[in-house]
Amino acid sequence: MKPLIHILGNGNVAQVLAVQLTNSGYSIQSVYARKKENANEIQTLTGAVVTDKISDIEKMQGIVFFALSDTATAEFCKRIKFKKDVLAVHTSGTLPDNLLAECSADYAVFYPFQSIHKTDEGNPFKGIPVGIYASKEESYQLLSNIAFSLSAEAFEITEKQRKVLHLSGVLSNNFTTFLINEAAQLLKINDLNPNLIAPLIKKTLNIPDFTKKQLPQTGPAIRNDKEIIREHLKLLEKDHNLSEVYEMLTKSIRLRIKDNSSQL
Amino acid sequence: MKPLIHILGNGNVAQVLAVQLTNSGYSIQSVYARKKENANEIQTLTGAVVTDKISDIEKMQGIVFFALSDTATAEFCKRIKFKKDVLAVHTSGTLPDNLLAECSADYAVFYPFQSIHKTDEGNPFKGIPVGIYASKEESYQLLSNIAFSLSAEAFEITEKQRKVLHLSGVLSNNFTTFLINEAAQLLKINDLNPNLIAPLIKKTLNIPDFTKKQLPQTGPAIRNDKEIIREHLKLLEKDHNLSEVYEMLTKSIRLRIKDNSSQL
Repeated sequence: MKPLIHILGNGNVAQVLAVQLTNSGYSIQSVYARKKENANEIQTLTGAVVTDKISDIEKMQGIVFFALSDTATAEFCKRIKFKKDVLAVHTSGTLPDNLLAECSADYAVFYPFQSIHKTDEGNPFKGIPVGIYASKEESYQLLSNIAFSLSAEAFEITEKQRKVLHLSGVLSNNFTTFLINEAAQLLKINDLNPNLIAPLIKKTLNIPDFTKKQLPQTGPAIRNDKEIIREHLKLLEKDHNLSEVYEMLTKSIRLRIKDNSSQL
Repeated sequence: MKPLIHILGNGNVAQVLAVQLTNSGYSIQSVYARKKENANEIQTLTGAVVTDKISDIEKMQGIVFFALSDTATAEFCKRIKFKKDVLAVHTSGTLPDNLLAECSADYAVFYPFQSIHKTDEGNPFKGIPVGIYASKEESYQLLSNIAFSLSAEAFEITEKQRKVLHLSGVLSNNFTTFLINEAAQLLKINDLNPNLIAPLIKKTLNIPDFTKKQLPQTGPAIRNDKEIIREHLKLLEKDHNLSEVYEMLTKSIRLRIKDNSSQL
């Protein structure tokens, strides 16, 4: 029999998790939202009971997913004591493995490594990696089955590895997003169509099998083309922020070459 | 009648330009390579005569494309005087508009903004932007027609704009490539499959219409989540290079929020 499921939160992960679990045949018993009306959509889509009472959380049975901010997860856990046999699961990339030990004897982590939005079409869990830790082997199995039902790829992950994975997301996504937006903005303020960068990005960021190769590194830094680097910095001289970023990343790319060659 | 075309160089741009122009019905008269045998493939694919004599370059007639490194282009131009009616064209993102004025009365720039490789399948020019400058209106038309024949998107570009466009390529491609490779490497050294980042990158770097919106900026920097930032820096403490990059980009993202909010 499939376990009963409760979800704390009404954000992107909470809603998509509730909807996709419902689609996979799980029954979402209840959803906690700070304001009941914020969970109207989840209620309509899943038929779950919505509550805004913390006292109701303590009555929950089965699996309780914390799909809240890190701060809210930590706060809630301090105020709650779950019944026996409740599996308390957080979904954070950065909180400790044993954070929920405070509120439940059976605790776990279910970390979907993807940017998930209510507006996503289809099943956003499909094919994405979900890092799992559980304090008990049977709870690990239960969460693996849930990941499998969501068509996600479950794997065991240590706390340190989960934090590294989260960090790799910041490097490869948040920072790259920033740089791409800056490039588009630079074109705009020079009366160029910002979409000019689109074909280049689409081609060069064509993700390879990283176990076999990396993305090819090209550009003035790797070639140590000092004249072009100087000229680029001149173009950015009025933008202290971006020129610092340019210098730093150029330096870092050059340092990496030295690191790698010293290992040969 | 289509103009006769000569190409200086045997690298990626030289070969792809020669092949795609041939496919579009142009006749590649000759190709200059420092070593003749380096242009064997171009010769086979296009039927062009290959030369390694600089004296032959001066005899060329029609359009001469410089598909060489910036340094080689500048050096060659100093040593050559073209015949009257030769259109000398360089393909650099960074050299001046009038560089080839030294060797030809009629000079231009034809800058394909894409990473082009001999191994590319299909026509790598298809749909890509090509920035054009020409000293004469009729030469501009000639080069626009060539871009059109290659299925590229021609547009007029000033020297400053071309340099900015090149810089935007470094920011949005070379630097992002670096960060993505670093993220993959970080996973590897922590015994995680580096392909774990692939689904996230594919989703978040889904290029929008930049005239209407940017990529959504998420992550600890935009949220000013100091605790996570501190923890990430701790994970990177043994990697001085990458921790500096992390700090710098986090600072830059935060500065941009302040810049933007001060403009409101």
